[in-house]
Amino acid sequence: MSEPEHIVFPCQRLEEFSKRVFMHFEVPEEDASLAAEVLAASDLRGIDSHGVARLHAYFEMLSAGRINPKPVLSVIRESPSTATVDGDNGLGLVVGPRANEIAMDKASEAGTGWVSVCNTNHYGIAGYYVLKALENDLIGWSMTNTTKLVAPLWGAERKLGTNPIAIAFPGKEEPPIVIDMATCSAAYGKIEIALRKGSSIPSGWAIDGEGGETLDPKRMIEEGAILPLGSDRDRGGHKGYGLAIMVDVLSCVLSGANWGPFAPPFALRQEIPEKQVGKGIGHFFGAMRIDAFIDPDEFKTQIDEYRREMQNCKATPGTDGPLIPGDPEREAEKIRSKQGIPLLPAVVDDLRDVAKQTGVPFE
Amino acid sequence: MSEPEHIVFPCQRLEEFSKRVFMHFEVPEEDASLAAEVLAASDLRGIDSHGVARLHAYFEMLSAGRINPKPVLSVIRESPSTATVDGDNGLGLVVGPRANEIAMDKASEAGTGWVSVCNTNHYGIAGYYVLKALENDLIGWSMTNTTKLVAPLWGAERKLGTNPIAIAFPGKEEPPIVIDMATCSAAYGKIEIALRKGSSIPSGWAIDGEGGETLDPKRMIEEGAILPLGSDRDRGGHKGYGLAIMVDVLSCVLSGANWGPFAPPFALRQEIPEKQVGKGIGHFFGAMRIDAFIDPDEFKTQIDEYRREMQNCKATPGTDGPLIPGDPEREAEKIRSKQGIPLLPAVVDDLRDVAKQTGVPFE
Repeated sequence: MSEPEHIVFPCQRLEEFSKRVFMHFEVPEEDASLAAEVLAASDLRGIDSHGVARLHAYFEMLSAGRINPKPVLSVIRESPSTATVDGDNGLGLVVGPRANEIAMDKASEAGTGWVSVCNTNHYGIAGYYVLKALENDLIGWSMTNTTKLVAPLWGAERKLGTNPIAIAFPGKEEPPIVIDMATCSAAYGKIEIALRKGSSIPSGWAIDGEGGETLDPKRMIEEGAILPLGSDRDRGGHKGYGLAIMVDVLSCVLSGANWGPFAPPFALRQEIPEKQVGKGIGHFFGAMRIDAFIDPDEFKTQIDEYRREMQNCKATPGTDGPLIPGDPEREAEKIRSKQGIPLLPAVVDDLRDVAKQTGVPFE
Repeated sequence: MSEPEHIVFPCQRLEEFSKRVFMHFEVPEEDASLAAEVLAASDLRGIDSHGVARLHAYFEMLSAGRINPKPVLSVIRESPSTATVDGDNGLGLVVGPRANEIAMDKASEAGTGWVSVCNTNHYGIAGYYVLKALENDLIGWSMTNTTKLVAPLWGAERKLGTNPIAIAFPGKEEPPIVIDMATCSAAYGKIEIALRKGSSIPSGWAIDGEGGETLDPKRMIEEGAILPLGSDRDRGGHKGYGLAIMVDVLSCVLSGANWGPFAPPFALRQEIPEKQVGKGIGHFFGAMRIDAFIDPDEFKTQIDEYRREMQNCKATPGTDGPLIPGDPEREAEKIRSKQGIPLLPAVVDDLRDVAKQTGVPFE
């Protein structure tokens, strides 16, 4: 798991550190715990880009007064199965879980609950929210827009975020199926890794500033964009582009947040869009009561069967056959909850810097 | 639009013919009109594979008694915002529109409506249903499973259908954004066309019977499978696979239909799976009242802005810049509603055969 250059920390210690850093900025203790829990979930599940590695960026945004440490959420419109929430420019790591709870509450009465959120900030991994729904025996949905990085198919500019979708289905004896995916062809983090290693990136990932394909990570990062899922027209790039729009509209247009290229930046170093078309970024949560559709026991038995059917599929050469979505992350969690979280030295330096500037002890 | 070998028919004439063929099998007139309307919508929108070109297959299934011409739909479970519908093994072209209406009715009370359908058959284009929602000023969702054609990522067998997702968002002065996409990398129809032309297919579309990539359409058709959206692991094939599972679970596991490789065949010539895990195939419909989230006028104004923002994006070389999802189909409809529907001679032969066997006049 951890390559030699990584430094391993117990997850609890990182989570406690995150919590105390948030509290340093007067985030209330309960909210700080929640935010730290969301970051820790990402580190545990092996999604290193969205965990404590982002704490420095949150620290900067809170230092600069760009995020409200004490948001008061308000429901600005609702119906039996829906709500629109204004997150009061709070941490997405706090606004997200609270809005997700509203979706789950709505589901208990109406069968399903759907919440679109404006005036919020980056909310960690989309998967966290659907795992929370699973704890309540619900099918959870989670989407968010993000800072622009992705080009529409046939476009030569960044106009869309990586706009992830997550949804999860519980099993009975077997683990759940947990789908959590960005709607672009590749993760930005992988392009950064290629840059650090001096290697090229695969075809189908990125374009340069003129819209031509590039295999050079530097050109993508400095001037280009990531391609939507499907990459080009032949292989269905218009589909990934369509999915990114879907996430954007449900999260932002439906709530009154900034969509597309107008999403405010996640970190201080990113440019602020010239124009605002709404408030903050947006999320979209859904919760469905299984028993509003079918006997939950029957549903879960079939999900177990579903898993086994895919796992029993003949494998393509050089692989062990199909994986079940969510299994690699659950495996990572099993290992990391015992062995700790491997961090890159650059991330550790960032955390030490946060410790120094806030006075919150790190080591 | 129409290549030289096509024969052009007025859409009304094809629609009337379809209607009378359905009525020949004792489909009630109202249902027959509805089914013919769904097929015509596909032909008008330029999705030739899902229109009257499929009438022969419906004819065969009805002739063989495999589809119930007079289904009585039943709601087998419900909550304020949900329903599970048993389609009584009717034509999907009839069961689909009726179940979609239930979703829209639920939305009028609960803000949103969500309907999972079992014991149904192929329902035409996913886009038809979300266009119906637009007519009622609703955001519509539509999904269905289909007969197996697609491999899970790293799998060497057909285990999934092309499992489309559609969703549409209305504009104010501008046309709506209509997303309608299969969750695989390429349409089966395009692979059939390559076979007819004797040409190879692009990389990323298909595997052979051993799971290795193939560029030979014949090998895909005879023994292989289509790849999920994203094609391979590098370019996000696990994401298309995840989306296909999502559609399958919402349409089938939630309703009690046959999921994955157990989906019954669409046409007589296809093999019947050895095992049943539910009833028929499944659909999933959603309807969201915009005013349950935001002022509809504000929403539509932003959708207009959204469209313009994407259309103003700098174009990649050799293109006219990003298209808006649904625009090519609406353009096709504009032309075809005036000029008629171009059909391949083989399709016309099929229709003549239906005419001969049913006694319904075609020309």
